[in-house]
Amino acid sequence: MRATVIHAPFDVRLTEVADTGLQDPTDALVRVVASCICGSDLWSYRGENEVLEPRRIGHEFVGLVEAVGSDVSTVKVGDFVVAPFTFSDGTCPNCLAGVQSACVNGTAWGAQGFDGAQAEAVRVPFADGTLVATPTVPDDELVPSLLALSDVMATGWHAAVAARVRPGQTVVVVGDGAVGLSGVLAASRMGAERVVAMSRHASRQALARDFGATDVIEARGEGAVAAIRELSGGVGADAVLECVGTGESMTTAVEAARAGATVGYVGVPHGVELPIRTMFGNNVGVAGGVAPVRQYLPQLMDDVLAGSIDPGKVFDLTLPLAEVAEGYAAMHERRAIKTLLRP
Amino acid sequence: MRATVIHAPFDVRLTEVADTGLQDPTDALVRVVASCICGSDLWSYRGENEVLEPRRIGHEFVGLVEAVGSDVSTVKVGDFVVAPFTFSDGTCPNCLAGVQSACVNGTAWGAQGFDGAQAEAVRVPFADGTLVATPTVPDDELVPSLLALSDVMATGWHAAVAARVRPGQTVVVVGDGAVGLSGVLAASRMGAERVVAMSRHASRQALARDFGATDVIEARGEGAVAAIRELSGGVGADAVLECVGTGESMTTAVEAARAGATVGYVGVPHGVELPIRTMFGNNVGVAGGVAPVRQYLPQLMDDVLAGSIDPGKVFDLTLPLAEVAEGYAAMHERRAIKTLLRP
Repeated sequence: MRATVIHAPFDVRLTEVADTGLQDPTDALVRVVASCICGSDLWSYRGENEVLEPRRIGHEFVGLVEAVGSDVSTVKVGDFVVAPFTFSDGTCPNCLAGVQSACVNGTAWGAQGFDGAQAEAVRVPFADGTLVATPTVPDDELVPSLLALSDVMATGWHAAVAARVRPGQTVVVVGDGAVGLSGVLAASRMGAERVVAMSRHASRQALARDFGATDVIEARGEGAVAAIRELSGGVGADAVLECVGTGESMTTAVEAARAGATVGYVGVPHGVELPIRTMFGNNVGVAGGVAPVRQYLPQLMDDVLAGSIDPGKVFDLTLPLAEVAEGYAAMHERRAIKTLLRP
Repeated sequence: MRATVIHAPFDVRLTEVADTGLQDPTDALVRVVASCICGSDLWSYRGENEVLEPRRIGHEFVGLVEAVGSDVSTVKVGDFVVAPFTFSDGTCPNCLAGVQSACVNGTAWGAQGFDGAQAEAVRVPFADGTLVATPTVPDDELVPSLLALSDVMATGWHAAVAARVRPGQTVVVVGDGAVGLSGVLAASRMGAERVVAMSRHASRQALARDFGATDVIEARGEGAVAAIRELSGGVGADAVLECVGTGESMTTAVEAARAGATVGYVGVPHGVELPIRTMFGNNVGVAGGVAPVRQYLPQLMDDVLAGSIDPGKVFDLTLPLAEVAEGYAAMHERRAIKTLLRP
């Protein structure tokens, strides 16, 4: 079978690998219908995360169940399933507490010994604790939105949950990547009255407005904070979603928050030193982390199937899996927000 | 009248100052019945916070209302009142949101132009938004517990609220000062099943147990984290109260928390760099800050008057106001947990 392998920085190729299959009775084998490229895949692509040896890559996919182990009971052959970007046993204390991304027996796809998702097929450990099946095989046009649930939409949702977004609030979203845009959609879906997107790119601003943004701020840093204070009557945002992960974005997020608010952050921190004196003085909390996608999947899947949300719009480039290298290049060069891959 | 003035590091004296009185129609004048010395007063005492010129000091007091301005409606002459350690107008957006400690027109006692509390009398701006009166003048034996509400008990309570303590949980409290001990009492009062105090001092351990601690850990750093994991079935604490404010204590708090938990922190941060990668990986949030005492006062006052809590036990030294210098020295040398002063 063929799977995407990162060989070195800027060298990502569809490569012939050994066929995958069931290993444990809790496994499922999933034939991939669609996978995609994540902003975090670009860290390895750019060499910011070291590539010590060639390895399979990709952690977002949907597909059809081709085989299940003898202990699997919640999905069956022929089911269409969405996989979170981490697998989880569903039974450990962290899973039972709804933090499946911290499963003591789970990890992300592509980790040592586990299949990456930008491939023709994926072996899924702990299928019952990981996969969620749709009631019936969905129309093909729904595939992008279901695929978005495997990471970006659920991650944007997690930012909004962590920030305790409530109906009627003014919510600021820092970051206009696929996760930030999903955060806009999440805040809007949760009933925020005013959703402020921070973006300088016309196409992303347009998608943000499509997802429910009522305001767009192009300024950054102190200018952005001043603009947010002005539009919130001087007090700051009721909730802030931080979807970047840099020191500057986190500082902006904390300073934009009103006293007592929470910054929900999902951007993997790179060089972030939290401005704790500002946080302390204003009682601004910081909560978030690796999204427990599995917790949100059933609810978000219902929303997609009902047409309440359409997160698949974040995909603005679709390529055959064989052209995965071009998909990476397009995202690296910011020609695409997010690339969908069809085997 | 006489008030405590800090002249220089290690030079705190009861000093003759101009009589205080009403200035604005929203003021009250309070004759102090009892005040006390806070751990944070010691920063100036030790020279860790600069003392640029002599100034009044102290921010915790209870007393009897001696006069009120024409716009004051919720307290009257003769009332016994508890003052939070900051005053607040009660009408700004932050006050209305319950974060009175971030009142746009308020600040702490002893700030430039405002009376310090270790004195015979205090002018209270925004009396309606600041003071809470008891239904009747309380018995003298209740004074210490009512005084504790002005800061330490309400601050420990805030840590527990910020950490989202729930009945049945395992809660760890980092710090065995008056605030940490109050945090133990708060967690216990909120119904935590297991309250773990971290302390190496026999007298503080005893008070922690008196306040509801079920376990005491003497280890620090990694040893403390290991002990907490062991007693929580390997998963970590459901909630952690950080009541110190150092980098080491905050790191211990974050590492002791289970995935998805929140560290409620109230120790004023000194040299803290939050371990954000650990926070992110485990979805451990950090929330807290300057306690909005005014929000909690009515509820905690009811608890004290009903005998449900007895936070005044944190006072293990009572001195006449004239001996305020000895009160500071005793706390600085850790001979006393907390000093109560009677004019």
